[in-house]
Amino acid sequence: MTAVSPTVCSVKHALSGQMEAGSKVTVRGWVRTRRDSKAGLSFVNVTDGSCFDPIQAVAPATLANYESEVKHLTAGAGVIVTGTLVPSQGKGQAFEIQADSVEVTGLVDDPETYPIQPKQHSMEFLREVAHLRPRTNLFGAVTRVRHTMMTAIHRHLTEQGFFWINTPIITTSDAEGAGEMFRLSTLDLANLPRTPDGKIDFRKDFFGREAFLTVSGQLNVEAYCLAMSKVYTFGPSFRAENSNTARHLAEFWMVEPEIAFADLTANADCAEGFLKAIFKAVLDERADDMAFFAERVQSDAISRMEAFITKPFERIDYTDAIEILKKSGEKFEYPVAWGIDLQTEHERYLAEKHIGRPVVVMNYPEAIKAFYMRLNDDGKTVAAMDVLAPGIGEIIGGAQREERLDYLDRRMAQFGLDTATYGWYRDLRRYGTVPHAGFGLGFERLLVYVCGLSNIRDAIPYPRAAGTAEF
Amino acid sequence: MTAVSPTVCSVKHALSGQMEAGSKVTVRGWVRTRRDSKAGLSFVNVTDGSCFDPIQAVAPATLANYESEVKHLTAGAGVIVTGTLVPSQGKGQAFEIQADSVEVTGLVDDPETYPIQPKQHSMEFLREVAHLRPRTNLFGAVTRVRHTMMTAIHRHLTEQGFFWINTPIITTSDAEGAGEMFRLSTLDLANLPRTPDGKIDFRKDFFGREAFLTVSGQLNVEAYCLAMSKVYTFGPSFRAENSNTARHLAEFWMVEPEIAFADLTANADCAEGFLKAIFKAVLDERADDMAFFAERVQSDAISRMEAFITKPFERIDYTDAIEILKKSGEKFEYPVAWGIDLQTEHERYLAEKHIGRPVVVMNYPEAIKAFYMRLNDDGKTVAAMDVLAPGIGEIIGGAQREERLDYLDRRMAQFGLDTATYGWYRDLRRYGTVPHAGFGLGFERLLVYVCGLSNIRDAIPYPRAAGTAEF
Repeated sequence: MTAVSPTVCSVKHALSGQMEAGSKVTVRGWVRTRRDSKAGLSFVNVTDGSCFDPIQAVAPATLANYESEVKHLTAGAGVIVTGTLVPSQGKGQAFEIQADSVEVTGLVDDPETYPIQPKQHSMEFLREVAHLRPRTNLFGAVTRVRHTMMTAIHRHLTEQGFFWINTPIITTSDAEGAGEMFRLSTLDLANLPRTPDGKIDFRKDFFGREAFLTVSGQLNVEAYCLAMSKVYTFGPSFRAENSNTARHLAEFWMVEPEIAFADLTANADCAEGFLKAIFKAVLDERADDMAFFAERVQSDAISRMEAFITKPFERIDYTDAIEILKKSGEKFEYPVAWGIDLQTEHERYLAEKHIGRPVVVMNYPEAIKAFYMRLNDDGKTVAAMDVLAPGIGEIIGGAQREERLDYLDRRMAQFGLDTATYGWYRDLRRYGTVPHAGFGLGFERLLVYVCGLSNIRDAIPYPRAAGTAEF
Repeated sequence: MTAVSPTVCSVKHALSGQMEAGSKVTVRGWVRTRRDSKAGLSFVNVTDGSCFDPIQAVAPATLANYESEVKHLTAGAGVIVTGTLVPSQGKGQAFEIQADSVEVTGLVDDPETYPIQPKQHSMEFLREVAHLRPRTNLFGAVTRVRHTMMTAIHRHLTEQGFFWINTPIITTSDAEGAGEMFRLSTLDLANLPRTPDGKIDFRKDFFGREAFLTVSGQLNVEAYCLAMSKVYTFGPSFRAENSNTARHLAEFWMVEPEIAFADLTANADCAEGFLKAIFKAVLDERADDMAFFAERVQSDAISRMEAFITKPFERIDYTDAIEILKKSGEKFEYPVAWGIDLQTEHERYLAEKHIGRPVVVMNYPEAIKAFYMRLNDDGKTVAAMDVLAPGIGEIIGGAQREERLDYLDRRMAQFGLDTATYGWYRDLRRYGTVPHAGFGLGFERLLVYVCGLSNIRDAIPYPRAAGTAEF
């Protein structure tokens, strides 16, 4: 009889039912719990992050290291379990492993003080051990959902014919006005070079001028849009805003598609299809993790995404939205009048109470929107749009871009922007200009919504915010 | 008779043969060339970036705007062409469009000075118009190949069970030693806060301490590896090295997979499968662009990738590689002796002349490798590996990580690293340590190789290097 060498596989694969009962398998991971039975064997739950559930290994007392090691296993210990995959006797998973060997790669130093115990921890505490929090059920699930959503974005846009463009993180343009910026420099701060009139001489800095971290890749990606037709940028973006809230990060990921020959309606269609594709991927691929969020974090986590996917988004004009808010009879903290920027209370009223599903508000007053947005024929609104959703408020912001050079120049002058600095951006209108539109989505805000998190710092592996840049 | 409304489609789709001849179509894009025939019609080649080839539109003189607009079309003009898809009469593409209408969205301001003429431009010139260069054949092809390679990385790793982890760009750890760093700050440089003893008071800075741009996400991603088993980080990385070469960027994209329970052999297997999957995707999905590179840039662009995919990588020990180099009879600029770091001339000799295909060199002297690499049993080498390929030299660097706390502490002491700063990294060895390994690939260097480019600044949309951060 020849010994069958075991198949090394993930816990996900071992639990999937794709392997026959009786197969020899090796799984490798970390102990979640150990329970010793009076019958002289131990039940060791092992997780490897590949799926929500751990697999149970049944370790008999006959193992050579049973007394010396197996009985000392605690949460977090690293193990390699080899044995026979068998239908599980108890409740829970369909399969378990009758262990022939449990190799211990590393025990836990001082199990009493190990931060990740098999119990619920506060989110604040887990932020202090961000290097260990992916070992918890919750952060394992957040990590897998995050992966599914991010790769779904690439997959969906690729299927639609978009190209991923890596716009620069380092920028020398500081005037877009999307937010406060971080300066980056290699100058010796203790010994700054000066010009003859005493100012700091940025010509001596690494790039020969002042440089900052990007707040948006949109202007850069527009240049590629006007060559490749359908493009997107997807990468880290930065805000140096000193706001210590549950909704702000200094470093976050943003995806910004940009579409040539698109008007605002085509843009809204694209945004709707995009959000639905992401949610569908989560429901299709992460059922295990979403069941956990629905059970433990937000009871309608699954049903609200299903509703989101099923129904068409409503679309209303900003001007109509203002009328709806005025007639609502609601007492708003911020008074409603044509010309205001909608506040979260207004957005939530529209999406949650008035319409009851996602809504695209279109055509905002030009005075409250960015310089690159296209002026409508009414002369007082621009072709901007915000996607508002129940439970989130604004999730996407976008616009048709001003493709007419004379209009763009007038808007830039209004905003006090220097046409020389934006010479390259103006070129895009001088040379074969075409209508185009795009939108932006702050990725972590969407992840917060999907998982029902209450703080955005739990939606990114190592959060950076004012006063916070550990690890 | 009801008019059939035309199908709006990409040039790629119109040329693909998936639509029947006789179909009414609308394509939208930019003019590459216009040629007027004596028979009183114009041939307008239109590109939209969706594929390498343009489509030819045949515009009859009967069009209402023929004299006023069509006959003034020049390279770069924006157009919307509607007509009937018909088999092409001439050489080149299989289909062309008999135009019923040619709508002009934007002409080119001063065609004589438009930078992107339908001729060959120098790469140096095109870097000066980086916002327009994607409109050239070459940069269109580079952009599509870049997209295919980047999405192939995500697809391949996802299929293998890896999770994408977004490690931070902003870091407060400055000691990893992978390269010179950019400082980022929100302090007012003209008025720096000082401590009582006159030093700059970084407690007043945004993060309450000194902060920098990351040089590698490896240490951060290891923490996720030791919870999720298979992970990768893929994002921008930074070096503030003042080297103005064709191989260095201040900002570039790096992918770093990390695998739990992997030794150096498993790591090399993963790297080999990874590179082959990327090349296979390019050959499968970008045949049109690769044909262009083979014809115009690097004649063996396709055949060398095919060879790369077909043959297994060779694997040799560093110590054996040194012996091979010593016995080679080659005159190297840098003398060969056990203990040296291999130079490009050595790497290319090994991959190109001695072995003739990609080779993984393994187990380097500990003195020349980073602190986190695992000490081998011989006590003088570490489990490091470099993948060398003909025509590139080193393309991937990786290692098995030191998972034993006592060894790690010894290495950190050798390198003068503070164990307090790395407390969280040491925790990963204190709490259920397991063997693990990973590698890193500088994305643009691979793209340079695939496309046969001679300068890395042409492999990223907006290159950043010493003195260069335009757009």
